[in-house]
Amino acid sequence: MANYQKLNVTGDERVELHDKIGLTGAEISVNFLPAGAAVPFVHAHKQNEEVYIVLEGKGRMVIDGESVGLSANDYLRVSPAAKRQLFADSGAGIRYICIQTKAGSLEGYTSEDGIIG
Amino acid sequence: MANYQKLNVTGDERVELHDKIGLTGAEISVNFLPAGAAVPFVHAHKQNEEVYIVLEGKGRMVIDGESVGLSANDYLRVSPAAKRQLFADSGAGIRYICIQTKAGSLEGYTSEDGIIG
Repeated sequence: MANYQKLNVTGDERVELHDKIGLTGAEISVNFLPAGAAVPFVHAHKQNEEVYIVLEGKGRMVIDGESVGLSANDYLRVSPAAKRQLFADSGAGIRYICIQTKAGSLEGYTSEDGIIG
Repeated sequence: MANYQKLNVTGDERVELHDKIGLTGAEISVNFLPAGAAVPFVHAHKQNEEVYIVLEGKGRMVIDGESVGLSANDYLRVSPAAKRQLFADSGAGIRYICIQTKAGSLEGYTSEDGIIG
């Protein structure tokens, strides 16, 4: 596999990056929900942790029945088993990144995993 | 562990999210390099794949001696063994997210791993 792959992502259509940039440790999607819209189902995961990163706009995630407000620059981790549903605000859409990784898969990181030089 | 954790990240100081939001499948950092600055070392990884997401600004990553331009909305995967160094543009800083995951750790994802309802 190439030592790197890059993609520029703009526009409102959902983009799934796994195959496009050759990911092997995560799936990363870039998403937009217009004002008043919702992901049309509640979902959970078998083994994947999710992180939602809000790029622009406002919304809320209902997680196991609790409503959690979301706005730009929020970083939200959701455990695999939690039942979640995302809603855009009635007055503002929400642009966000969703990262899926296998829960518990990370071993060393940063200085433990890095090699300088 | 709580079924979710959330943090709002603004400002120019580097923020490492692993411990702050209880990540177990990734380390995610939010970073800013001012105009003309560079990460002061070349590095690679033992086993972690990295994804760099450019939020704002411009720069370039030198990867195994090749210069790769970076601008807002770029999503860049870098293989563990690749030697990399990030530079901000001389006229513009660069704000970016860096995601580390263990290469090869992702199993099923999206519809394979998701549970509807």
